[in-house]
Amino acid sequence: MSAKIDLNCDMGESFGSYKLGCDFEVMDEISSANIACGFHAGDFMVLDKTVKWAVEKNVGIGCHPGFPDLQGFGRRNMELSPEEVENLCTYQLGTIFAFTKKYGGEIQHFKPHGNLYIMTYSKAMAGDASWAEAIGRAVLKFDKSLIVMGMSGAPTQDIWRNMGLKVASEVYPDREYNANMTHVSRRVPGAVILDHNKVMERAVRMAKEHEVVAMDGTLIENVEFETMCVHGDNPETLQGLRDINKVFKENGIEVTHLSNIVK
Amino acid sequence: MSAKIDLNCDMGESFGSYKLGCDFEVMDEISSANIACGFHAGDFMVLDKTVKWAVEKNVGIGCHPGFPDLQGFGRRNMELSPEEVENLCTYQLGTIFAFTKKYGGEIQHFKPHGNLYIMTYSKAMAGDASWAEAIGRAVLKFDKSLIVMGMSGAPTQDIWRNMGLKVASEVYPDREYNANMTHVSRRVPGAVILDHNKVMERAVRMAKEHEVVAMDGTLIENVEFETMCVHGDNPETLQGLRDINKVFKENGIEVTHLSNIVK
Amino acid sequence: MSAKIDLNCDMGESFGSYKLGCDFEVMDEISSANIACGFHAGDFMVLDKTVKWAVEKNVGIGCHPGFPDLQGFGRRNMELSPEEVENLCTYQLGTIFAFTKKYGGEIQHFKPHGNLYIMTYSKAMAGDASWAEAIGRAVLKFDKSLIVMGMSGAPTQDIWRNMGLKVASEVYPDREYNANMTHVSRRVPGAVILDHNKVMERAVRMAKEHEVVAMDGTLIENVEFETMCVHGDNPETLQGLRDINKVFKENGIEVTHLSNIVK
Amino acid sequence: MSAKIDLNCDMGESFGSYKLGCDFEVMDEISSANIACGFHAGDFMVLDKTVKWAVEKNVGIGCHPGFPDLQGFGRRNMELSPEEVENLCTYQLGTIFAFTKKYGGEIQHFKPHGNLYIMTYSKAMAGDASWAEAIGRAVLKFDKSLIVMGMSGAPTQDIWRNMGLKVASEVYPDREYNANMTHVSRRVPGAVILDHNKVMERAVRMAKEHEVVAMDGTLIENVEFETMCVHGDNPETLQGLRDINKVFKENGIEVTHLSNIVK
Repeated sequence: MSAKIDLNCDMGESFGSYKLGCDFEVMDEISSANIACGFHAGDFMVLDKTVKWAVEKNVGIGCHPGFPDLQGFGRRNMELSPEEVENLCTYQLGTIFAFTKKYGGEIQHFKPHGNLYIMTYSKAMAGDASWAEAIGRAVLKFDKSLIVMGMSGAPTQDIWRNMGLKVASEVYPDREYNANMTHVSRRVPGAVILDHNKVMERAVRMAKEHEVVAMDGTLIENVEFETMCVHGDNPETLQGLRDINKVFKENGIEVTHLSNIVK
Repeated sequence: MSAKIDLNCDMGESFGSYKLGCDFEVMDEISSANIACGFHAGDFMVLDKTVKWAVEKNVGIGCHPGFPDLQGFGRRNMELSPEEVENLCTYQLGTIFAFTKKYGGEIQHFKPHGNLYIMTYSKAMAGDASWAEAIGRAVLKFDKSLIVMGMSGAPTQDIWRNMGLKVASEVYPDREYNANMTHVSRRVPGAVILDHNKVMERAVRMAKEHEVVAMDGTLIENVEFETMCVHGDNPETLQGLRDINKVFKENGIEVTHLSNIVK
Repeated sequence: MSAKIDLNCDMGESFGSYKLGCDFEVMDEISSANIACGFHAGDFMVLDKTVKWAVEKNVGIGCHPGFPDLQGFGRRNMELSPEEVENLCTYQLGTIFAFTKKYGGEIQHFKPHGNLYIMTYSKAMAGDASWAEAIGRAVLKFDKSLIVMGMSGAPTQDIWRNMGLKVASEVYPDREYNANMTHVSRRVPGAVILDHNKVMERAVRMAKEHEVVAMDGTLIENVEFETMCVHGDNPETLQGLRDINKVFKENGIEVTHLSNIVK
Repeated sequence: MSAKIDLNCDMGESFGSYKLGCDFEVMDEISSANIACGFHAGDFMVLDKTVKWAVEKNVGIGCHPGFPDLQGFGRRNMELSPEEVENLCTYQLGTIFAFTKKYGGEIQHFKPHGNLYIMTYSKAMAGDASWAEAIGRAVLKFDKSLIVMGMSGAPTQDIWRNMGLKVASEVYPDREYNANMTHVSRRVPGAVILDHNKVMERAVRMAKEHEVVAMDGTLIENVEFETMCVHGDNPETLQGLRDINKVFKENGIEVTHLSNIVK
């Protein structure tokens, strides 16, 4: 098992006078930044600053497109057509490309945000690949060298792979899993793990052994993933993130760019 | 004097269910399309369709960024900082780039929209080059081969030229001019010429002789310009545009891409 | 059977520079206006003008709240919480109230717009009354004398009635019905009736006999309704609406305010 | 001199997932809440909660309308027509009315927000009363018993008084004044007073003596005002606010509803 891992985190979610997250500090603790593009969060001033920081701090830049729903932060289901999904991805890819070019960087990856991510994989699980394919088309036509991030074990991964895209799978150390490697619904008490030590233990075991124990006790082995989703919304989670980096170092786990892992 | 001219027209101004203009038909009558990017008008679905048509009909594609004010259609003054002006241009450049790439085209030019255009040149006239420079920076950092369109005779033209940008100047055959080549304010009765025959006569004289008679009767000679701004919002102006093309043909005036004129 | 009927039509759907509908003319042909409140359509300038016309032309004023989705015109499903549904109704009720007060009028009715309407009744059909109840609460707390409009035969009608609200049921002369009085999906060819004479015949039969023939040929009798939804988006449908008024007059059917029918 | 004073504070400025201010706690320290209505800040969920708290805590409810510019937080100049100013006030008055009605409260006052406030008084200072009159008309037509808040000494106060409106004047203990009682521009170093003890001293002197020392040392006496604008954006300013209330109590200054002061 590889002891190289990418840490990805949502960034650039402030808007106008509204500040969210500790982006500047978090950038020192991650290898990939999923940057909001002005739909579910972010705006043209925030994008500018966030991309600048990512380039300066050598963090992999990711396009993180979301629903056109700032009030709902892209977390309310919206029933869009596949054409709408493709075009909102294309549009948001362009926005981040422009700022990346401004600062001499490059886009590394693409990760759908919030309920665009969830609805895409839920539809695919139910046999409807239309959104996953729409996302795949948007990326392919824009830059086929981008790495598309999706849920480890989800059918989206093969859909994108079969379209000729590079794909990365991700795990969440702070989320409980079902035995089939799907997330336990947030509505289930305990689905989000708040015990910081437990989160770190899981993160290390995931990274070193590619194993996770499901909520029902089942041991899931050989979990395929290249990146781990982490958070840094506030001083507390920022500290948690620093601790994860420390414990990774102690365990010989190297945090590195996704592009060093997914070829 | 050159008898080659570019015809530019605002395009892609529909939004959601709201339809504006006869873009598909107008595309056959112009050489440059100034395409809205989703701030003052347009959205990711409209951009997609408009760029597709422009590529298919071989019309020069222009980024036409505006204020973030859909209700005001970018025509209400907004006092933004130069940083905001630069970043809103960068953002909107990215959006149209993405769709242009999707359809195998290229961006040809850049023209600020509405009151972003007017405030930029008014500020420059009053000695404040900050907005013109902000726009220039956005274009330079994105793609210095783009041609920036501005008002014939305006100080913006030299500002952009001195920054190392390609610049095109434009005239409006349906607008009355003051003797100093500024537009007569729309609030002055008759400032917008409604007599279609007069508009055509002016268009031909501008294109062939590079001359225009100001509202006060002054003959303005040696007007420098490479492009003419036309309209096609409704069936009537579309017909007017067809007439202009016909009368240009009869007078040996060639309508051609701006990139064939500005090197 | 009553030969009194209310004609309701969506109004105030323009936005900024975008014009939609022939509201001024349509106001002469209807008795109830469902006025957009700035979420799915409309803005504070359009609301002002539309309410003014309704008061001047003595048309019943209705609050027509929609999803916060201008691009989608409120016609894309959005999965909101019941609290969000209640509060967006309350907010939009306030907006129209203010303009109604300005012009010395009163709000007569309340009709959810587009997919807020459809999702509310679809959920209620599936046993989930949460949205219907949220809407009912918003109206009750604002003004319990308002008449809530819903689909004839839908479970929403009883939900609202049981909450102590006045309720009106509506039919659509240009929509095909299933035998159980639900609308045939727009995706079924012919679901929207384009033959103007057929629409008028159905309108008269509905109004006089309270009967409609379903798409499968079933005769549906004793259809309970007080209002008929009509359209006036363009010169053609405006003429159709004038024809309906003419044929109603010839058939002794009186078009009158909903508040004259629902007590 | 009266030792009764109203303390007003901007409230309800969160939006969707973005949290701003310590509204719940601040409500205990003020007598008037200027509540955002969803244009420059706030949304229908935030309005609901904020109005609820204000009613429960018996704080005077104020409509605090702003520019339709969430990104700029209503602090970027927008050149609107007087009709637009009137209608955006009417619209926002309606929104807060609906929530106030829901919770059994009443609107007490009206205070334009941010650059709507500043542009209105700057225009009036320059002899253009059009915006002040537009605001006055909106309030008059909605509810002439509302108290309109403006800058102490500004020409807006007489404009509104002459229209038959109740008017309140406000002072800012943390802002330096020019000798003519206008605010020293924020661009001047020291214009905003950060020394908390100095702010408290000024607050007490304003409340007890109706005096303030201008930045240039001039003593301004007989300052007419009924309300003082305070802040509670963060734990620090919240504590400052608690201190002001404490020192007012010690000095026999009664904080009370504006409606108890302005008759």
